[in-house]
Amino acid sequence: MIIILKQNADEGKVRTLLQGFEAQGLACHRSDGEHTSIVGLVGDTSRVDLESVRANDIVEDVKRVSEPYKAANRKFHPDDTVVSVGEARFGGLHFGVIAGPCSVESEEQIVAVAKAVKASGAGLLRGGAFKPRTSPYAFQGLHAEGLELLLLAKKETGLPIVSEIMDLSHLDLFRDVDIIQVGARNMQNFEMLKALGHCGKPILLKRGLANTIEEFLMSAEYILAGGNEQVILCERGIHTFETATRNTLDISAIPLLKHHSHLPVIVDPSHAAGIPWLVEPLAKAAVAAGADGVMIEVHNNPKAALCDGAQSLTPAQFDGVMRKVKAQLAFEGREG
Amino acid sequence: MIIILKQNADEGKVRTLLQGFEAQGLACHRSDGEHTSIVGLVGDTSRVDLESVRANDIVEDVKRVSEPYKAANRKFHPDDTVVSVGEARFGGLHFGVIAGPCSVESEEQIVAVAKAVKASGAGLLRGGAFKPRTSPYAFQGLHAEGLELLLLAKKETGLPIVSEIMDLSHLDLFRDVDIIQVGARNMQNFEMLKALGHCGKPILLKRGLANTIEEFLMSAEYILAGGNEQVILCERGIHTFETATRNTLDISAIPLLKHHSHLPVIVDPSHAAGIPWLVEPLAKAAVAAGADGVMIEVHNNPKAALCDGAQSLTPAQFDGVMRKVKAQLAFEGREG
Amino acid sequence: MIIILKQNADEGKVRTLLQGFEAQGLACHRSDGEHTSIVGLVGDTSRVDLESVRANDIVEDVKRVSEPYKAANRKFHPDDTVVSVGEARFGGLHFGVIAGPCSVESEEQIVAVAKAVKASGAGLLRGGAFKPRTSPYAFQGLHAEGLELLLLAKKETGLPIVSEIMDLSHLDLFRDVDIIQVGARNMQNFEMLKALGHCGKPILLKRGLANTIEEFLMSAEYILAGGNEQVILCERGIHTFETATRNTLDISAIPLLKHHSHLPVIVDPSHAAGIPWLVEPLAKAAVAAGADGVMIEVHNNPKAALCDGAQSLTPAQFDGVMRKVKAQLAFEGREG
Amino acid sequence: MIIILKQNADEGKVRTLLQGFEAQGLACHRSDGEHTSIVGLVGDTSRVDLESVRANDIVEDVKRVSEPYKAANRKFHPDDTVVSVGEARFGGLHFGVIAGPCSVESEEQIVAVAKAVKASGAGLLRGGAFKPRTSPYAFQGLHAEGLELLLLAKKETGLPIVSEIMDLSHLDLFRDVDIIQVGARNMQNFEMLKALGHCGKPILLKRGLANTIEEFLMSAEYILAGGNEQVILCERGIHTFETATRNTLDISAIPLLKHHSHLPVIVDPSHAAGIPWLVEPLAKAAVAAGADGVMIEVHNNPKAALCDGAQSLTPAQFDGVMRKVKAQLAFEGREG
Repeated sequence: MIIILKQNADEGKVRTLLQGFEAQGLACHRSDGEHTSIVGLVGDTSRVDLESVRANDIVEDVKRVSEPYKAANRKFHPDDTVVSVGEARFGGLHFGVIAGPCSVESEEQIVAVAKAVKASGAGLLRGGAFKPRTSPYAFQGLHAEGLELLLLAKKETGLPIVSEIMDLSHLDLFRDVDIIQVGARNMQNFEMLKALGHCGKPILLKRGLANTIEEFLMSAEYILAGGNEQVILCERGIHTFETATRNTLDISAIPLLKHHSHLPVIVDPSHAAGIPWLVEPLAKAAVAAGADGVMIEVHNNPKAALCDGAQSLTPAQFDGVMRKVKAQLAFEGREG
Repeated sequence: MIIILKQNADEGKVRTLLQGFEAQGLACHRSDGEHTSIVGLVGDTSRVDLESVRANDIVEDVKRVSEPYKAANRKFHPDDTVVSVGEARFGGLHFGVIAGPCSVESEEQIVAVAKAVKASGAGLLRGGAFKPRTSPYAFQGLHAEGLELLLLAKKETGLPIVSEIMDLSHLDLFRDVDIIQVGARNMQNFEMLKALGHCGKPILLKRGLANTIEEFLMSAEYILAGGNEQVILCERGIHTFETATRNTLDISAIPLLKHHSHLPVIVDPSHAAGIPWLVEPLAKAAVAAGADGVMIEVHNNPKAALCDGAQSLTPAQFDGVMRKVKAQLAFEGREG
Repeated sequence: MIIILKQNADEGKVRTLLQGFEAQGLACHRSDGEHTSIVGLVGDTSRVDLESVRANDIVEDVKRVSEPYKAANRKFHPDDTVVSVGEARFGGLHFGVIAGPCSVESEEQIVAVAKAVKASGAGLLRGGAFKPRTSPYAFQGLHAEGLELLLLAKKETGLPIVSEIMDLSHLDLFRDVDIIQVGARNMQNFEMLKALGHCGKPILLKRGLANTIEEFLMSAEYILAGGNEQVILCERGIHTFETATRNTLDISAIPLLKHHSHLPVIVDPSHAAGIPWLVEPLAKAAVAAGADGVMIEVHNNPKAALCDGAQSLTPAQFDGVMRKVKAQLAFEGREG
Repeated sequence: MIIILKQNADEGKVRTLLQGFEAQGLACHRSDGEHTSIVGLVGDTSRVDLESVRANDIVEDVKRVSEPYKAANRKFHPDDTVVSVGEARFGGLHFGVIAGPCSVESEEQIVAVAKAVKASGAGLLRGGAFKPRTSPYAFQGLHAEGLELLLLAKKETGLPIVSEIMDLSHLDLFRDVDIIQVGARNMQNFEMLKALGHCGKPILLKRGLANTIEEFLMSAEYILAGGNEQVILCERGIHTFETATRNTLDISAIPLLKHHSHLPVIVDPSHAAGIPWLVEPLAKAAVAAGADGVMIEVHNNPKAALCDGAQSLTPAQFDGVMRKVKAQLAFEGREG
């Protein structure tokens, strides 16, 4: 951590500040120039609050040098974390595929989609029971009944299931769900993250629409700090000025996250683009950039879907995408 | 709502689509050109799902013409909503001031700040008991004890209190809190919004960092749709590429929100900028742009604050800002 | 400037790097920790290229501590720069008003608008002769004829004129223009900035749509470095995800620019919002935040305007805005 | 084009407005609802100015339905445009590689880099003679001498050359340059685009940092409208809130641009990321997403580079990237 002191800062106050740091076991190295004085703080600074330091009237600015996350940091955990669910694996050489409808609508629908995506090679079934909808007048999901239908589809096909939690009070309902998804809008729902750190299940954490990669890893850190090391990171597009796509897929996030963290990283090309014919090129780009998996929306009848139909693939379209993805995984030497 | 049909769309499919809308009580007006055909949908389209319509293979694009919110819409409720708490009023000619520390730290601290901000003219005391912190290693608030200390400060000063809820399971703890705050990170925590629609208390709803004005009003609509009409909207900056300020205060949001909605709109210049000396010019700008209130962070010892000290004002600085704000309110003919 | 060295950096390479800096007259202060080593570089680092330093394989990261601009920096020029043109003044206590149509269309139009805005209190007439239009099929301005019509309006009313330059080859045509405007799209047209540094005329420099405040000041630095100290900075909105306004007016930029620089700062509420009824609240907010002037689009017949009619005020609307602005300037103790 | 009329719009004014459109050869179809009236405008609306229509006091909003570009539009030119320079081809099945240093620094440097990148398989040599630098104190390029050195390297290696133009007054100096590059900061320098529409040379047009895909295609339209059909589009990252990379590579732009336009699309992973080890995954992702080429920065001594050294690859690193890119092109059935 580096502290830039104000010009003509009171020497007594500077000494008091530095003694405070030394009392926390940090070493302070000071460099004085004509216009600026710099203090380098060396040691474990992850618990130092930048804002409080910045509030000192002798401080011009404070900059962090080392990453504020530890459990998620590859520096301290060089080996890839592999998350395993059923026969699916995410991380290391393994590439996992999650597919299914935006929302569970009926037994007929979810079983049909489950069978279709399994036949095409998906390793997990996704389906929303609780749906975060911008409008209170839109379909909000089947709730507990939706989770029951998902379990039914799991029984029929053997595919483990992924579903999104929207409130901690529903946690009990997720006891038989294989991976609990935290949606983009809840990436900084810290009470939820803390609780999921103790839930004993793999977590699929989606990046928030306005959150930096560092904030994303800090949210993963909340779960890891609670003792749950099975976290899959999911890049799903960020909010930018571009309106041609629903969000802007940040493809660089894949290699960056994998560089800074040992956690597996997957991509959701359906939500990133919001346009079905973009799913294939984005899924391929994700593989090429090193992703450990994809999550793709598939609906047996997109135009009658109760939610996000416009971005869903039909089973036949999904099968086409999977052929391309599998061929590319083979080319890359990855295990699909 | 307007539907743009694909070139050479199958006529039978178009007829089926339009008959479906007519069955929902909507009137369809069609215009055929050389390269595009347009269908105007007229009637109550707030329940039509754009995405499902867009999923039709005969549809090129769909555009909404009327706002998707009703209860929050000024068109249907032309008069300003005024939210009253204690002697504070937000909306119409009334301007309310909320002040206090980012987080409640001790009885001494909260009582001292409460007395100071009351003396300077604040109408409500704010203080965080549950704190959304990016880092799991940062101070997370005093929780139930923090709320008790706030109530103690209320007893001492008579100031009603505002505090942020971070999880619905804490709702019972907020029974004596006067205004429940929904933070930016929870603006689209829809389960929370639904529950607060039935809680019988005024809600201070902060705009999300990546959310449009329309999405902001849709979140307010969730609360209003539940029967709770006491919603105060709070603009607190959005996430942009600019790094000189923590966020970018969207000053235009004030007149826009007041144009489209009858709800009161306040501004949080402390979180928007993250720089204490910007609070005064931004608070004044907010008054000039028509805001119905401000929320300002004040700490009796910013450099020892456990949270967000860098952006807090001292009581003396806050008093200076209040003098300017009051003078400007008088100039504008507003009741402070 | 601070250099963060990689873990286990080769000691010989580190020494070579630091000797290079010392040869440039910089002092190097080093702090070694367990996981990171930091080097503080003290002295005039404005000519050190960050990117080249970062390219060293022993360097993890480089951070600048002092601002990279000097001529525009208030630290070295504490007094406000005042730009004077005719009877208009920008900076210090002075507030200037520039008004006129987006583009000059005819003698009748420009003279009528000039008379109207003068009567309402504008100190300068603006009018575009060369228009930057997104579409090649849109009206591109009257070019040389447009500048002649502006000069005619100046003769009729005595108002000095402001017009935008789009290419350096047109510079000769601007010899009688009083203030040369550099548009947002040319803020980083560095060849143009260099040439305007020698043109002997005041420059109105608009902020680019995707440019930070620091980049904005660096572009001003280009002009100042050429010897031209008459630069007016103009905040006109930045590109964000919000689509309710054409751009997002960054109101915080006003106090920030004035804090870091001595140059006058004005606001263009017409282009920032793109909505005529937002001009008044935004102009008032700009005054409240400390702006040194405004630039407002006025057209005698907005709905027949050949360019940007939707955001133009009528002369009557402009007169209403000016009454509010003047009242507020008086309240603020500014000279309008 | 669709016009949404205000509630209770004066019927006489509406008729006048519609008659104006009919006089321009457009057909008007009107749909009246309880709260809104919609007018569908059918015909060639590319010359209708949205802003002027919006300025009518009877108009609530105007929305474009068809793309405002024609020459660049795939609808009217279904076949891929292929741009050929020397032995390099961009578009259709062809994939072109441009490589070289950010700026030309010396004969020794540029010839060495040219030989190296040719050996690794690059089809064109890039090198900046005029450099757009944020700081006036940074190295600005060797200007005419830089272009001469590039030509020398071309003579030595046979590689055609690409260089960026920064001002139209330099156009004569580019007579022997094979592809003229328009940088991101000049993407909306419309006078330059117009002139390049008549220059008879292929143009490499980079996307602006804050420009949408539609604006990007409108800038290409400026060049095409002048008669020059040899335009290569280059995605190089956009400005977002994320700071971990210099810019955010918009990978979706590749398939979107190719869907809407027949022009070839290449990617510049060096400028997009600003981090050398991200060049390989981003280049591979670009191929996977359907790009028609890449442009990569290579310097024989990045840490001594006078410009952007931090993002340059060494010749050996570039060779490694090329092996991966070529293998992937073969896998994709593209001609490298």
